[in-house]
Amino acid sequence: MQPQRDPRGLWLLLLSLFLLLFEVARAGRPVVSCPAACLCASNILSCSKQQLPNVPHSLPSYTALLDLSHNNLSRLRAEWTPTRLIHLQSLLLSHNHLNFISSEAFSPVPNLRYLDLSSNQLRTLDEFLFSELQALEVLLLYNNHIVAVDRCAFDDMAQLQKLYLSQNQISRFPLELVKEGAKLPKLTLLDLSSNKLKNLPLPDLQKLPAWIKNGLYLHNNPLHCDCELYQLFSHWQYRQLSSVVDFQEDLYCMRSKKLHNVFNLSFLNCSEYKERAWEAHLGDTLTIKCDTKQQGMTKVWVTPSNERVLDEVANGTVTVSEDGSLHFQQVRVEDAGVYTCYAMGEAFNETLSVELKVYNFTLHGHHDTLNTAYTTLVGCILSVVLVLIYLYLTPCRCWCRGVEKPSSHQGDSLSSSMLSTTPNHDPMAGGDKDDGFDRRVAFLEPAGPGQGQNGKLKPGNTLPVPEATGKGQRRMSDPESVSSVFSDTPIVV
Amino acid sequence: MQPQRDPRGLWLLLLSLFLLLFEVARAGRPVVSCPAACLCASNILSCSKQQLPNVPHSLPSYTALLDLSHNNLSRLRAEWTPTRLIHLQSLLLSHNHLNFISSEAFSPVPNLRYLDLSSNQLRTLDEFLFSELQALEVLLLYNNHIVAVDRCAFDDMAQLQKLYLSQNQISRFPLELVKEGAKLPKLTLLDLSSNKLKNLPLPDLQKLPAWIKNGLYLHNNPLHCDCELYQLFSHWQYRQLSSVVDFQEDLYCMRSKKLHNVFNLSFLNCSEYKERAWEAHLGDTLTIKCDTKQQGMTKVWVTPSNERVLDEVANGTVTVSEDGSLHFQQVRVEDAGVYTCYAMGEAFNETLSVELKVYNFTLHGHHDTLNTAYTTLVGCILSVVLVLIYLYLTPCRCWCRGVEKPSSHQGDSLSSSMLSTTPNHDPMAGGDKDDGFDRRVAFLEPAGPGQGQNGKLKPGNTLPVPEATGKGQRRMSDPESVSSVFSDTPIVV
Repeated sequence: MQPQRDPRGLWLLLLSLFLLLFEVARAGRPVVSCPAACLCASNILSCSKQQLPNVPHSLPSYTALLDLSHNNLSRLRAEWTPTRLIHLQSLLLSHNHLNFISSEAFSPVPNLRYLDLSSNQLRTLDEFLFSELQALEVLLLYNNHIVAVDRCAFDDMAQLQKLYLSQNQISRFPLELVKEGAKLPKLTLLDLSSNKLKNLPLPDLQKLPAWIKNGLYLHNNPLHCDCELYQLFSHWQYRQLSSVVDFQEDLYCMRSKKLHNVFNLSFLNCSEYKERAWEAHLGDTLTIKCDTKQQGMTKVWVTPSNERVLDEVANGTVTVSEDGSLHFQQVRVEDAGVYTCYAMGEAFNETLSVELKVYNFTLHGHHDTLNTAYTTLVGCILSVVLVLIYLYLTPCRCWCRGVEKPSSHQGDSLSSSMLSTTPNHDPMAGGDKDDGFDRRVAFLEPAGPGQGQNGKLKPGNTLPVPEATGKGQRRMSDPESVSSVFSDTPIVV
Repeated sequence: MQPQRDPRGLWLLLLSLFLLLFEVARAGRPVVSCPAACLCASNILSCSKQQLPNVPHSLPSYTALLDLSHNNLSRLRAEWTPTRLIHLQSLLLSHNHLNFISSEAFSPVPNLRYLDLSSNQLRTLDEFLFSELQALEVLLLYNNHIVAVDRCAFDDMAQLQKLYLSQNQISRFPLELVKEGAKLPKLTLLDLSSNKLKNLPLPDLQKLPAWIKNGLYLHNNPLHCDCELYQLFSHWQYRQLSSVVDFQEDLYCMRSKKLHNVFNLSFLNCSEYKERAWEAHLGDTLTIKCDTKQQGMTKVWVTPSNERVLDEVANGTVTVSEDGSLHFQQVRVEDAGVYTCYAMGEAFNETLSVELKVYNFTLHGHHDTLNTAYTTLVGCILSVVLVLIYLYLTPCRCWCRGVEKPSSHQGDSLSSSMLSTTPNHDPMAGGDKDDGFDRRVAFLEPAGPGQGQNGKLKPGNTLPVPEATGKGQRRMSDPESVSSVFSDTPIVV
């Protein structure tokens, strides 16, 4: 007869086995469901206005948008999420009390594209704080207490397009961040309004392309009032840049502890802003940018005579380069006039007019002093050479003894070697001396067919000008020519 | 002596003039500053959690993001903003009490790309409600009381990529909206989870491309439990589609008023899901899609013998078409095997394997029924023709009298027209009765050299088969031929 088994024991065994299997199954599939404080709609977790003191502990790995705004978060530690949220694209942390963010806080969210940290209590932005966020496009930091921005805070953020730093306490900002081709190559909006900026690197700002200046908001800052500032913003206003046009009432500067609107600085007697024309000289190489308010527009240039400028050289010397700039290989007088750039973009079209003035002489014409010095020097040396010839190489009347007098030649070569620092270009050296010219010491002015006074080129001069590539170009000297005499003399153009 | 002027009057006059000028200047430049309830950071207006019963009256025209979440808005009228906000890209209206949205409410914001209407009290989505939003990419409508979605509610939203309708009361949704190339061609995410959907058009769902199914969230709905549903979601699970993998615990169905997990339907005894191979017959034209989870991936196919399939025909007949599909011009036996598609995308890569089975005979071999019917028909017609020949064209012994006996022919035609409802194939009608043959009515089985019993084609039969273009094809009847006799008799194939 078989022994009677306790049925309760069997049930307990089965139950524990079942629970064990259930746990194993769960462990193999780490499914995390919606946190209690949140509202979940597939990959969106909305946990706003829940008075949360901390981020909910376990967040589903598929989360794409996490809204934690209007809570009581004060610190964002490195371990705020135990799981990596590689699908997270938007993290909303605005309207909290955040005063600390760990430098490793963003390691678990490498694919974030939108980060809202506005309306918190952040005081500093440490170096490399956002460096993990290499896909971030928009960063909202307005309405914090930020005093200092580290130069390296935004390193490696190659995709950043919009950075809002308004309503902080920033008194210095590394504006080199916005330079074209700089650390933030895609930045089109930098909001530095309502801060404590006093001084700006105005010449550097003016050099920025229009598509950066268009989104560079600087209103409501105690800037230092001066005419340069007025001229800068007047230019931006003339170009109808959003950063000035939309906020011209709020564009202030400070003088004698009083705030003034930048466009109302009559007490400074600044000259009115006038758009300047481009200036060029005959034969110059010139590139005029189509400085649009938006990046990546399609650009078409039209000449003063209403002809479209082509990408390749046709009859003129003007072309449109790959980036949409107008390029003159050699400026001619007839190139002068108003050129128009029609730019077509996704959001809007733009028309830019640029006036080109061409001076009717080459760039060298300006350097009268140098040219005078140069010609005087040439004349002077020629005179010295003539004097030397007159002194040492007077015509020899003994025709027949030419071959039999090597000693005389030796003397010549001696004198020649003595002057070797000036190269042996003596036009008369070894020449026949049987001419009947009346030789006198004199200053000779060079009088080529195409040169007028002071060596200026007359119009229509056919003297070959070396291909110029820009200003400050050094004239090529031909070592075989007379000018090579001066090869040791520095030529400052 | 000049009369004394009152200095106060002069001052008042000057002041009023000044004020007038100021007002004129302001009127000419409609600059709208930041509304009192909002925090403004350049083009962002954050007016959240301000207990606003209405949208602030005047909003700056340059606004790009308007946050009105966590307020007390209940109606969004047509005139909610007097100025057009053409720069507005994001409008956040979540966590309000919105129960009415005017059909013209979105006219002033034509360039909106992100609209958050979640956590409100909307009950219906009227037709053309969002039709003005032709640039909208993301629409959040989760956590409302939506019962009905009009078929035309999302018309003209060609840019819509993500539509969240979770946590509503939706019991029917026009799923034709998500069909490829349908009204919402760019939709990659449709969240219908946590609604009241009971029945789904399962075959239509299965036909959708994987990149749509991957973002089609259907969990937490009281779907009807059956094996077809199980097979559908098993396939999605096999393909690791996010909509099932991320929410397999929440994927329910209903049976006998009880909720069951879709993957735990043992009581239904559904057969296990098995990925089916592609089947083809010799000479077939076949296109196999590389059905990736993401759109616009770069696709590379590799043959069973580990060779890359090229875009152009090389030695085989298989090519890769423009959309990345594998295309067989004429399937051969040696084409069978497992093909692999390597797909490279921006976010992730994917590898898909597809098995191809090739049957060693042509497609027509399968259609025995059709072929039997066809050959029987041919045989039957041949018999009738033979009978007619027998009746009318028997060898005439009175060679010379053929023309002189028209009366006999008239009798033939009479009997023929009398029997016209049943086709005039009476073998005895009007036949010459002076022949010495023993004539009987009989069905003649065709006995050509290539035909066996029941008219089935023997292998190697050389009978010319008309070019078939598909199943259920009806043979064209030639009105001039003998077979047109049967044109009134319906032929059921």
